[in-house]
Amino acid sequence: MSTNSKTKVIGVDIGVKTTTYAIVNIRGTIIASDNFPTTDYPDVHNFVSALCERIIVLAEANGGFESIRSVGISAPSANFISGCIENASNMPWKGVIPLAAMMRDQMGLAVALANDAHCTALGEKVYGSAHGMQDFIVISLGHGGLGSCIFSHGHPYLGFLGAAGEVGHTCVEDGGRLCTCGRRGCLEEYASDRGLAQTAKELMAESNEPSLLRELPALTPEAIGRCCDEGDAMAQEVYLRVGRTLGIGLANFASVIDPEAIILTGELISTGKWLFGPTEESFEEHVFPNIRKRVKLMVSLLDNKERDVLGASALAWDVKEYSLFL
Amino acid sequence: MSTNSKTKVIGVDIGVKTTTYAIVNIRGTIIASDNFPTTDYPDVHNFVSALCERIIVLAEANGGFESIRSVGISAPSANFISGCIENASNMPWKGVIPLAAMMRDQMGLAVALANDAHCTALGEKVYGSAHGMQDFIVISLGHGGLGSCIFSHGHPYLGFLGAAGEVGHTCVEDGGRLCTCGRRGCLEEYASDRGLAQTAKELMAESNEPSLLRELPALTPEAIGRCCDEGDAMAQEVYLRVGRTLGIGLANFASVIDPEAIILTGELISTGKWLFGPTEESFEEHVFPNIRKRVKLMVSLLDNKERDVLGASALAWDVKEYSLFL
Repeated sequence: MSTNSKTKVIGVDIGVKTTTYAIVNIRGTIIASDNFPTTDYPDVHNFVSALCERIIVLAEANGGFESIRSVGISAPSANFISGCIENASNMPWKGVIPLAAMMRDQMGLAVALANDAHCTALGEKVYGSAHGMQDFIVISLGHGGLGSCIFSHGHPYLGFLGAAGEVGHTCVEDGGRLCTCGRRGCLEEYASDRGLAQTAKELMAESNEPSLLRELPALTPEAIGRCCDEGDAMAQEVYLRVGRTLGIGLANFASVIDPEAIILTGELISTGKWLFGPTEESFEEHVFPNIRKRVKLMVSLLDNKERDVLGASALAWDVKEYSLFL
Repeated sequence: MSTNSKTKVIGVDIGVKTTTYAIVNIRGTIIASDNFPTTDYPDVHNFVSALCERIIVLAEANGGFESIRSVGISAPSANFISGCIENASNMPWKGVIPLAAMMRDQMGLAVALANDAHCTALGEKVYGSAHGMQDFIVISLGHGGLGSCIFSHGHPYLGFLGAAGEVGHTCVEDGGRLCTCGRRGCLEEYASDRGLAQTAKELMAESNEPSLLRELPALTPEAIGRCCDEGDAMAQEVYLRVGRTLGIGLANFASVIDPEAIILTGELISTGKWLFGPTEESFEEHVFPNIRKRVKLMVSLLDNKERDVLGASALAWDVKEYSLFL
């Protein structure tokens, strides 16, 4: 079968809890998809075997394995250049895992691996808000923290050894909140799900002011957003503070990178105006004057559920088949 | 005369006070140089005429004008892509000045223009500490503030519209010191000559502790450095504080860019260990753990006086002669 008849790719999104995999065609339509708990496989060799078997079963039931061109994988702390998951702090597999090579050897297909931020950004370029752009930044705000990816001249900006884009771990408050990376004051401890919840806790402790926040069973972005909708001043102040900090972090990022646009994605921004308004105001206040009102601050239009596997599949189209012979 | 016999270039460094120009050969040797006060020419047209006449006189006295291949110019707020000086806050020429085109039209030579940070970085790559590197950052700490330039894959990283690298204008303290750009808390108000002086003033005001600083006629980096050498605790604390802030700014920059090295240059760092030590300590504390102890923090080896024209001349070798026909 010639390469041209290989009209589909596999997109795999490895999350801390769930791994989702999908068959995607040239038009970017998800033909079939399935998922399983990542946590079922504390040993990465067993994980790879199970994932490969499942992909083959899904492919055979949907046009045959021989129609699959390549595989794109999104994973936390993945290095696109080395093809390895490197010291992922919140995954069960420790150290450096050569996941792309392991998958390639087992499936006989070319495999590309990138971190979730890189895949999300590629998805925005191929299917989303960054369509037609060459120089942009995508910021993912959600459960895992704050991820980011820079695109420059149409390609991901990876840095000297593939570690670029860690804006979530830039220090916004010297000696501030303790981060999962072991340091203090990282942006993602303020602008993420857990950062939002922490800000809410701090505000509740600062005063005895009554607030709907005090009755919430869990301080999720959605729940705090609903309190804002009902006019709760303290809930709105939570988003104001988080937006102000996020705006400073993004303004610093933009002043250094000079992108055409910054696209915000993830659960935190999908709660809407309560975060976006204060973020945009703080961003314009803090960005370098020569690029003020010129960098477009945008919200992703992609569906939260489809975004991750689509981004991973976008990676698969680009992988070179000669990588099979390396 | 063929292109190959054009073995020399002109490097021009336009400073706020002084403009220096030099004839430089292929080996990077300065054959002749001269300078004049920039402030003598409040009208940029007169400046360009005077500069071109002076360059021709110098060239005729040193091998002939026909041996000159091209011109490289370093200027504040210069945009390499547009060839314009854009809204330089501390220059007499306001608005957007198409300096490269003005010089090209008057001299009949290809002219490249870049900001001082870009030229300084190119000088480090061609003649200095970044020799052989493709991915690095050069930081200039001095009179003008804090300039920076990113090199990626051997080329300057310019951003979407040529405004990248403004790390001096990233916010390190929300609501902090007022910057010349009109905003508050910019890094260059802490890590520059005037930032150092301001920190010294604040420390003197915080206590009545005796210090050699109180007797200094001017709070220059050299003078404060000499107080440190004599064991003055308050002077050492000035450098400690400035170094801590600079280390955070550089760590954030490195976490986003992932360079092979950061090279520090300029008057402020040439005072030696008092700034470098605390900066390095803070840098390693605040940089993203995956790149800790891997990004080389270095001090420039180039002579302060020659660096600027050499950097500008490095720019001239790269300019394409076809730009003459655009």
